[in-house]
Amino acid sequence: MKLSRIGEFGLIRRFSPRFLRDLPPGVTGIGDDCAILPWSGRRRLLVTTDMLVEGAHFLRAKISARDLGRKSLAVNLSDIAAMGGRPSAAFLSLGIPVDIGVAWLDAFFAGLRELARRERVSLLGGDTTRSPGPLVINVAVLGEAMAGRIKLRSGAKPGDAIFVTGSLGDSGAGLRILLAGHPRNRDESALVRSHNRPRPQLAEGAWLAGRAAVTAMMDISDGIDSDLRRIMERSRCGAAVDLDALPISGPLRRTALRRGWEARELAAAGGEDYSLLAAVRSDRAAAVARGFAREFGRPLFRIGTITAARNGLRYFSGGSLTELERRGFDHFKRG
Amino acid sequence: MKLSRIGEFGLIRRFSPRFLRDLPPGVTGIGDDCAILPWSGRRRLLVTTDMLVEGAHFLRAKISARDLGRKSLAVNLSDIAAMGGRPSAAFLSLGIPVDIGVAWLDAFFAGLRELARRERVSLLGGDTTRSPGPLVINVAVLGEAMAGRIKLRSGAKPGDAIFVTGSLGDSGAGLRILLAGHPRNRDESALVRSHNRPRPQLAEGAWLAGRAAVTAMMDISDGIDSDLRRIMERSRCGAAVDLDALPISGPLRRTALRRGWEARELAAAGGEDYSLLAAVRSDRAAAVARGFAREFGRPLFRIGTITAARNGLRYFSGGSLTELERRGFDHFKRG
Repeated sequence: MKLSRIGEFGLIRRFSPRFLRDLPPGVTGIGDDCAILPWSGRRRLLVTTDMLVEGAHFLRAKISARDLGRKSLAVNLSDIAAMGGRPSAAFLSLGIPVDIGVAWLDAFFAGLRELARRERVSLLGGDTTRSPGPLVINVAVLGEAMAGRIKLRSGAKPGDAIFVTGSLGDSGAGLRILLAGHPRNRDESALVRSHNRPRPQLAEGAWLAGRAAVTAMMDISDGIDSDLRRIMERSRCGAAVDLDALPISGPLRRTALRRGWEARELAAAGGEDYSLLAAVRSDRAAAVARGFAREFGRPLFRIGTITAARNGLRYFSGGSLTELERRGFDHFKRG
Repeated sequence: MKLSRIGEFGLIRRFSPRFLRDLPPGVTGIGDDCAILPWSGRRRLLVTTDMLVEGAHFLRAKISARDLGRKSLAVNLSDIAAMGGRPSAAFLSLGIPVDIGVAWLDAFFAGLRELARRERVSLLGGDTTRSPGPLVINVAVLGEAMAGRIKLRSGAKPGDAIFVTGSLGDSGAGLRILLAGHPRNRDESALVRSHNRPRPQLAEGAWLAGRAAVTAMMDISDGIDSDLRRIMERSRCGAAVDLDALPISGPLRRTALRRGWEARELAAAGGEDYSLLAAVRSDRAAAVARGFAREFGRPLFRIGTITAARNGLRYFSGGSLTELERRGFDHFKRG
């Protein structure tokens, strides 16, 4: 059977049950943004890992070594943010093709270290090796959170409000601009920057983790169309999304108009936003949104409602049911 | 500057000091088999990670999916063994080329899970993605050890005896056989098996970690010619190795004769043995060796003596100074 038939999530569904049977008590494995292990007392250890492969996740001609070093760490910190945790240590494995020199690596490490220092993450080890093919980067990050303040994907309930912590689709648009050539103006440069320099929302994640009314949380890495399905799967629920409510930035709105793109499609299925997706008990939704705005000086965007599982994922626009043209990202199905 | 000029260890020496400056107290980073972090009380968390890239570390035509799954975990468990720790959790990242199907992955996971269950390691997460080039496997393993029973590379002192826990060169010979074609007889099949199915010496590592007289330990991944230099660097010492004392298995001795290979060169520089290298206080060396033989029913092999740093790494044979033709493995210098 070809992998493209079952897809990335099919693969995880196929293999994870065999390993989940072997778990010791108190441990949460495969299926959330991070694994959770007992630490001491109420402290929990969070672990996450991400692999970036040249040609699949990035093109070396389209991102500076410094930005790539930074982003390799950022995408992992985003997983820690999604659990409401604080990152502490990082481990880097590099498969380095022959045409990469020391100057390139200097810049890569400078970018990684810049973000590591800002977020107080120590690079504690890793592995460097030659790659006969593409550049391969694997980062594993350890973090910490207190039991009872960790938000899983599995807690959402029908009726909960669905929020996102930042505008959607900028990164997807930035990627499209890079694949088509170069940014043509300031708006397009901003979108490319969103793609190449994502900011892990650690403060936002920690704040949301402190609200008991937040029932589920994850980071937006494949686009809400894909990521919401992960929450639905784990929480055994459905979701209704109001496409008119998706937060779309000025640069994306103007660029979509100019280039004839459908901004809402990019916002729903573009991927790599690395903001957070959270479900919040409906009776506390307005208060949480007010508190977030007070804390961070920008809005928490309500984009829909958790529904019963039988409804699946439904999109609305102008109050009527509608469909997306694009689907969220699956590495194997797009292959 | 080209990476091949500074090599893998030059690369680590170049970048690690910048990161080591950022370490919080109680944390040991880059430079040993594992990183060490505080856990609770006297418990310490060990972390290690290894990346295997098709074409650099393995050829898919030369190792079964099952053996490769097993080996991907085994090489990391060997790093935990080298600190005297007990492994607990593993994280797997896979970059999968399009020509790999579900049946291949089934076998890969079966091999990995077989070893994971035997050593009570839980697979807790990871990342699966498409690779436009070679198959890439990154495994990160967490383990545990008690403070005071962890053996570093940095404790060896001039006069200490140097021991290895198993025969050397079998795996290097197995690789040579695979690269030249196929094993031709039972001996050669045994050597190939050593290469494809290394056994992490967790029990041996834990036992040695319990001996106060063991001053330094590491696992033999690049060949003692390379690995001893790591101990010399960290312990600021030299080493004298008796080539006549290198433990060489029957299959390697007979195959080397038949194929005209220099068995001692393979034993010193072949790599991927994954047995353990330990320095032991000379006044306790005989007692430790006796204890090891009692515990495991096979000898601990004394291969040399730690010397003063100014002597560097010297080889002896028949009592006279001699030189190796081959050097231990460096991924970038061999590129």
